[in-house]
Amino acid sequence: MSAQSILQFKKTLENLDACMAKAEAFATAKKFDVNVLTQYRLAPDMFNLVKQVQSCCDSAKFAAAYLSGQTPPKHEDNEATFAELRARIQKVIDYLNGFKAADFAGYEAVKVSPNWAKGKWLPGDEYLEALAIPNFYFHVMTTYAILRHAGVDVGKMDYLGAINLKD
Amino acid sequence: MSAQSILQFKKTLENLDACMAKAEAFATAKKFDVNVLTQYRLAPDMFNLVKQVQSCCDSAKFAAAYLSGQTPPKHEDNEATFAELRARIQKVIDYLNGFKAADFAGYEAVKVSPNWAKGKWLPGDEYLEALAIPNFYFHVMTTYAILRHAGVDVGKMDYLGAINLKD
Repeated sequence: MSAQSILQFKKTLENLDACMAKAEAFATAKKFDVNVLTQYRLAPDMFNLVKQVQSCCDSAKFAAAYLSGQTPPKHEDNEATFAELRARIQKVIDYLNGFKAADFAGYEAVKVSPNWAKGKWLPGDEYLEALAIPNFYFHVMTTYAILRHAGVDVGKMDYLGAINLKD
Repeated sequence: MSAQSILQFKKTLENLDACMAKAEAFATAKKFDVNVLTQYRLAPDMFNLVKQVQSCCDSAKFAAAYLSGQTPPKHEDNEATFAELRARIQKVIDYLNGFKAADFAGYEAVKVSPNWAKGKWLPGDEYLEALAIPNFYFHVMTTYAILRHAGVDVGKMDYLGAINLKD
């Protein structure tokens, strides 16, 4: 299950990147600099789009690292443009591509102790369900909502991606 | 894992209901009718708040029913006020409370065939990861984003709820 969640994070980041590409096309059609959108927020006391994208990247990266007992790669949070944000997304997709299901064997019982928890911890399964998954979708969906509200032509299927129905 | 996901849906609906209560308090403080917000959207071609709340309720309800092989209860989608939407959320919370972990035994292999799939299907684990979870958070987060954008004082911790860190 953990491996499936990580695969789903990867798919969702690919879908988010496609939404970012749609924003670039929208900006070109409307003749504005797409990087204007990096400073957009839905409310003044909310993270801007840059920080939303960085946060969903981190949420996926840390989940994969913590649940497999690895040390996550460091990313500097210095992106300022759409091109840099899309490169950041790609870096995390590449990182997630390096995992295989066996890396997450026994993830349920791993003690996950993020820096901000100051020594406290959650068992892996609880961390995944109560924190990693909802936190990931929080930042993905806020990014999506900012783009949607700004007029970019994205819909739920862009976010969900292809659903592989069987006959 | 499926049972944990359903529990997390229940917790998230409780958190969403608390956000709705914050919206009511905001409306009272600002002296407007909270039901004005039922028609809010982030974009004109997006579902309004009523339909967002109905959709996250349905997403949680159908996931629990499909993955346990039960027939979901019918809800009429006739809510028009905050009070009615909060009652709808409560109905689904009550429904989810009726499940125990054993109800989801073998969920991975259940053939899930929603009405819109017209006879096609997904295995339970793929349905949960690729559809139920992201679709649920899509509508929860869009509801949250509408309230946040309208000025309601909600933050990520309202959405995540209490995180039960261990010493």
